[in-house]
Amino acid sequence: MPASADINAISNGTITSPQGFSAGGVFIGLKTRGEDKLDLAMLVSDSPCSIGGVFTTSAIRSATVDLDRERVARGQARALIVNAGIANTCVGAQGYKDAEEMTRLAAEKLGLGAEDVLVCSTGVIGVELPMSLIRSGVTQIALDADGGPELARAMMTTDTHPKETAVSFAASTGQTITIGGVAKGSGMINPNMATMLSFATTDAAVDPGFLQMTVKAVADETYNMLTVDGDSSTNDTFLAFANGQAGNPVIDDRSPDSEAFTAALHQVCANLTRMLARDGEGATRLLTVQVDGARDAIDARKAALTIAGSPLVKSAVYGADPNWGRLMMALGRSGAEAVEEKVDLFVNGVCIMEAGTPIPFHRDAVVALMSGEQVDFRVSLNLAAGEATAYGCDLTEQYVIINSAYTT
Amino acid sequence: MPASADINAISNGTITSPQGFSAGGVFIGLKTRGEDKLDLAMLVSDSPCSIGGVFTTSAIRSATVDLDRERVARGQARALIVNAGIANTCVGAQGYKDAEEMTRLAAEKLGLGAEDVLVCSTGVIGVELPMSLIRSGVTQIALDADGGPELARAMMTTDTHPKETAVSFAASTGQTITIGGVAKGSGMINPNMATMLSFATTDAAVDPGFLQMTVKAVADETYNMLTVDGDSSTNDTFLAFANGQAGNPVIDDRSPDSEAFTAALHQVCANLTRMLARDGEGATRLLTVQVDGARDAIDARKAALTIAGSPLVKSAVYGADPNWGRLMMALGRSGAEAVEEKVDLFVNGVCIMEAGTPIPFHRDAVVALMSGEQVDFRVSLNLAAGEATAYGCDLTEQYVIINSAYTT
Repeated sequence: MPASADINAISNGTITSPQGFSAGGVFIGLKTRGEDKLDLAMLVSDSPCSIGGVFTTSAIRSATVDLDRERVARGQARALIVNAGIANTCVGAQGYKDAEEMTRLAAEKLGLGAEDVLVCSTGVIGVELPMSLIRSGVTQIALDADGGPELARAMMTTDTHPKETAVSFAASTGQTITIGGVAKGSGMINPNMATMLSFATTDAAVDPGFLQMTVKAVADETYNMLTVDGDSSTNDTFLAFANGQAGNPVIDDRSPDSEAFTAALHQVCANLTRMLARDGEGATRLLTVQVDGARDAIDARKAALTIAGSPLVKSAVYGADPNWGRLMMALGRSGAEAVEEKVDLFVNGVCIMEAGTPIPFHRDAVVALMSGEQVDFRVSLNLAAGEATAYGCDLTEQYVIINSAYTT
Repeated sequence: MPASADINAISNGTITSPQGFSAGGVFIGLKTRGEDKLDLAMLVSDSPCSIGGVFTTSAIRSATVDLDRERVARGQARALIVNAGIANTCVGAQGYKDAEEMTRLAAEKLGLGAEDVLVCSTGVIGVELPMSLIRSGVTQIALDADGGPELARAMMTTDTHPKETAVSFAASTGQTITIGGVAKGSGMINPNMATMLSFATTDAAVDPGFLQMTVKAVADETYNMLTVDGDSSTNDTFLAFANGQAGNPVIDDRSPDSEAFTAALHQVCANLTRMLARDGEGATRLLTVQVDGARDAIDARKAALTIAGSPLVKSAVYGADPNWGRLMMALGRSGAEAVEEKVDLFVNGVCIMEAGTPIPFHRDAVVALMSGEQVDFRVSLNLAAGEATAYGCDLTEQYVIINSAYTT
């Protein structure tokens, strides 16, 4: 990972911040609750795009995932249609037909071939899409170069706010390259993509093979290190579109800009990951768990995710309770190699255990540290050089309340 | 598994129901809360016992686990000392010393060698045992052939009530064989033994090798199929003592009574498993998930445990919400092979999905079915003959409340 010093945050950045992308959304009645009443949206590039994508690994998955996976394999696409409210999952063969029709409707509106359009759905499982509403809805979408925020709102389900970000950096050949992104999530979030949709756009010219490789690597370090409740979803999808309008030489793995591009996409996805974690269902605090000194990166990921995903750790974070015994419990069961006498623990930078021995600490001070909007645990295993960071949130009564009455 | 028709439940059965076992408990001040103020207890057999045991697989574990594992490997023991309130975990080298001293204190009281005594602790992690309280406490314990309930109470932590059971069956040679058991648990419960302690006794004569094998097999089908919150503990231990006082010929894997003995021990552990699940922290309902038709037993276990452990499924059970989409989501991410078009789902015996297609059902009727004390999901994968049952409970606001303020 190169230094991110030369990557600039764009204020009010969104998925239409890069050149040549337009988006827009409408409300057609798929969402039955929530203030933010948009539920169908489209994204389109003025010119053909390289495409990269990663998807849920669940055996039970939305038809949209199957369709998109086929089209992403071509390496090219130009547009996206997305709805929230209904997941188009567990509806039998009708699911694939409806997903295909959604791409055809979008393609007709845009004058493209259907194979140039990708599709995502999120919401309730087991309900067929009301295609008549979608048919008329597509004709009403107004696409605009400032339309990113409409798309971000239209993809929300139990999210309390839209998630958008963008960054830019200078290519070695002088052009300014912009990367924008949006995401939705909040429950059912866990490694392997969870009920999470995220889309990124860039005006960089990027080789499709390199883009696919980078999308996978960045997702593994960001979205796949996010855990809200251990539940993964049927629909998780992360898609990246690169339209080349910045005019830079095509970026591939031998390009001088490959590292900067990877770092910038990583920053977009890490920003969105933190937003997703902080907006976990019922969450009051962002939790990050950094593990270092692990036997290898795989062990570090296991340990970080297990700690960040532990209901007992998450409940303690909610109670601002420096209950390090639970961190040790979660570390112990994670499957990562750990030697009790070597473990150091830190809470928001304060060491509370050194070499496996608790350090007497001023309890009230640590409780105060943990009472803010973010709690950072660091676990040093002191075995080797494996490192990873996981993102999560606290577990609150509100999570249970939200999820015990979702369809009722 | 043989038919359990000839296994008889014993009313008010407990760990001292089999012949030749005594137990007793005292309060020495280790527990800081809870009504049930016993926290140190002992169990002893009048004669030597074969012994079997299984333990947590956590890399961070109590010194009691290391000590017991060494002693169980000998195949023989006669007594047990157990405390609740403090886990004797993450206290450095002092932990093993204190565990050893506890067995020495019990052995001196009983006139045994220390190596004939096993030890378990449960409670807060990272606090040293106050050995002076334990030294005087051991002398005050009154051992009695009716003392099982005192031991069951003394091992409780956040449990709301003690868990005890016993069954009997007739050996092929005519003797009545009794098996009794106790357990504690309630949070931090998940496969690989969780914060769970369970002890079983029997007056059968059992070969130590066969007993160890049976303990492992039964634990895999009962305690290791129990999930309350996905968190496993540092101290989990299941020990079985067989003293031979029933006078039966020694049971081993070629004995005509081997199947009946296994079935009876299974019934004791399954009874305790259901009691543990029903008493999960904050739980209002017992949840069982039966998976059949899986590719193999391993797939069936994965699917059953993932569904029973899913926070979204558990929240839906709390809300009496027949949200089958979440079952499909959890099935999909479990890693078990599943083909959407083949899956049948049942809620308390009512089919709500057949061959992957939801069956229109009278929602109010299913909500009413789910509003009782027990919710049973059955998932038929219709692929092959793999079967498993997992045990869990609903997720409630009360779980969060209990666990956000445990040490504070």
